[in-house]
Amino acid sequence: MRSELLDRVLSLLPRRRGPLEPPLSERCAQDLALLGEMLGDYPRRGGKGLRSELLLASARAHGAGRDPARWEAALWLAAGLELFQNWVLIHDDIEDDSEERRGRPALHRLHGVPLAINAGDALHASMWAAVHRAGVPGGMEAFLEMVWRTAEGQHLDLAWVEHRRWDLTEADYLEMVRLKTARYTVVVPLHLGALAAGVTPDGRFLAAGLRLGTAFQIRDDVLNLSGDAAKYGKEIGGDLWEGKRTLIVLHWLAHAPQDQQATFLDQMRRDRADKDAGAIAEIHRWLLEGGSVDYAQAYADAQAAEGLELLAGALADAPDQAAARELLNTVRELATREA
Amino acid sequence: MRSELLDRVLSLLPRRRGPLEPPLSERCAQDLALLGEMLGDYPRRGGKGLRSELLLASARAHGAGRDPARWEAALWLAAGLELFQNWVLIHDDIEDDSEERRGRPALHRLHGVPLAINAGDALHASMWAAVHRAGVPGGMEAFLEMVWRTAEGQHLDLAWVEHRRWDLTEADYLEMVRLKTARYTVVVPLHLGALAAGVTPDGRFLAAGLRLGTAFQIRDDVLNLSGDAAKYGKEIGGDLWEGKRTLIVLHWLAHAPQDQQATFLDQMRRDRADKDAGAIAEIHRWLLEGGSVDYAQAYADAQAAEGLELLAGALADAPDQAAARELLNTVRELATREA
Repeated sequence: MRSELLDRVLSLLPRRRGPLEPPLSERCAQDLALLGEMLGDYPRRGGKGLRSELLLASARAHGAGRDPARWEAALWLAAGLELFQNWVLIHDDIEDDSEERRGRPALHRLHGVPLAINAGDALHASMWAAVHRAGVPGGMEAFLEMVWRTAEGQHLDLAWVEHRRWDLTEADYLEMVRLKTARYTVVVPLHLGALAAGVTPDGRFLAAGLRLGTAFQIRDDVLNLSGDAAKYGKEIGGDLWEGKRTLIVLHWLAHAPQDQQATFLDQMRRDRADKDAGAIAEIHRWLLEGGSVDYAQAYADAQAAEGLELLAGALADAPDQAAARELLNTVRELATREA
Repeated sequence: MRSELLDRVLSLLPRRRGPLEPPLSERCAQDLALLGEMLGDYPRRGGKGLRSELLLASARAHGAGRDPARWEAALWLAAGLELFQNWVLIHDDIEDDSEERRGRPALHRLHGVPLAINAGDALHASMWAAVHRAGVPGGMEAFLEMVWRTAEGQHLDLAWVEHRRWDLTEADYLEMVRLKTARYTVVVPLHLGALAAGVTPDGRFLAAGLRLGTAFQIRDDVLNLSGDAAKYGKEIGGDLWEGKRTLIVLHWLAHAPQDQQATFLDQMRRDRADKDAGAIAEIHRWLLEGGSVDYAQAYADAQAAEGLELLAGALADAPDQAAARELLNTVRELATREA
């Protein structure tokens, strides 16, 4: 994220208002310094800040760039989105038992699960501090809707892993993605940008954002199997090790020979540590060579095209047309990214 | 908690504003129903609602009982405190790998760690919905302070377990308790009651609440070793299995014969599953018979007495003196409870 936002994010981390009475013991002060490090760790790893950029582009398109107070509010909301992204990633990485985040070990692999859950909770509170600081009417409601819907999508994703469920349709997957990813990645940034500018969000943002956000997630699934590890920042093939449901896998499973299906389901029944590296590599090849990655990419492209058209329509009368074009470019990039 | 508050808590759980387009698949609808169950589970288990009662008693003492709008605001803040307690307990139980909560298996033991972390996060957001709904000036700030300080205390507690640290002083333990328990259990409810009534909280609430909250936590530690399992709702001796630092244990450790210390530290070096039931039972006896439980109880009694005196002074001019007396009784009960 841009350094201006990182500064705001860091300014919202828990801090003491004054000295404690009695003063902290050396032991406690030293241990609390570790909490401070943990809270700043993911934000400092340099995420791309896609969602905050999208929010700021939406705010400019709606005219907030010309009003210092509204721009200031937009920046606090953007910091809030970054805080959301970061606390959610800490908890997601535990829930999925991911190994890496942004090219380094996941936080719970550095400090253990208990401390990492707790750090995510403290960062979650900082997100609400950002929303409160922005003071934008409708901001609290938008963040509430975002956290709740994202938690619903995450619940579906995790429940399918927990219950070893593979009898899923593409429609199930797409609903999960709309809840878990599309809203907070595209719909909510578009909405918040409008709210920061004091404008009621256009009704078409929802349909546009769901399509663009779906394209974004499918693109992520594709990159997870076929991306460049250095750019992607997570392990390639990690979704297979973690047993994630993706459009790619569900499409392949519906068309694969029975013996390949059996190999796949046998591996997916196992916990990560019990999976067989050779079998996972073979499954990885089947997914790439069987056309399912291409199928998913084509679906993503179609969703992105529909979403962009809807969004262009919604922005046709936006007060700042140069900013609106920039917003469309940002969104296009997000849905078709290489990393 | 009282049924009036439980209704408010349940009304703040994530809900859909309208039908989705396209409608949810049967699979997704069924899986999301499980999330709904999980979110309502701990609140429905019937916690004692100590903190919300304390908040409401403080609100009444400050005169909010005579103003329907302020009383309504107090009830939403009280629902927020209950939501705080419940999401924190879900995450605490994972962090401590506790077996039971309120006489039933902990949430993550019913549904697995990933789904339980996520449910805690959704419930956390509902807490902010309650604060927003109350609309009390200073309410957001008080909740932020509460979440942050509680997370700091929890971090200390967990870091000591994670880093197998037993070279701790009683001062270290007391600081941890002030951060982790005393603020959200006593200081914050006293403050929020005043804020709901439109009154600036008395400066003495902090010192009073820290003492009373410390007494409350030490009492909890005592009950964990010597309470009645049916009333207490958690396993007796659970703190030993979980390797919790308590005043009792730190006092005993500083005075125990070397061979007992060695047995203790050997057990505490192990994960829960590797601990020896016979050794834990023996340690349990040493703690009870060696006078350390009595020592801790006497410390708690002194803290409670000091806290009550400070609080009585702070409430001497409260507008509703009958309610102030009730508040003092509630607080006395809390610091000297049997379960």
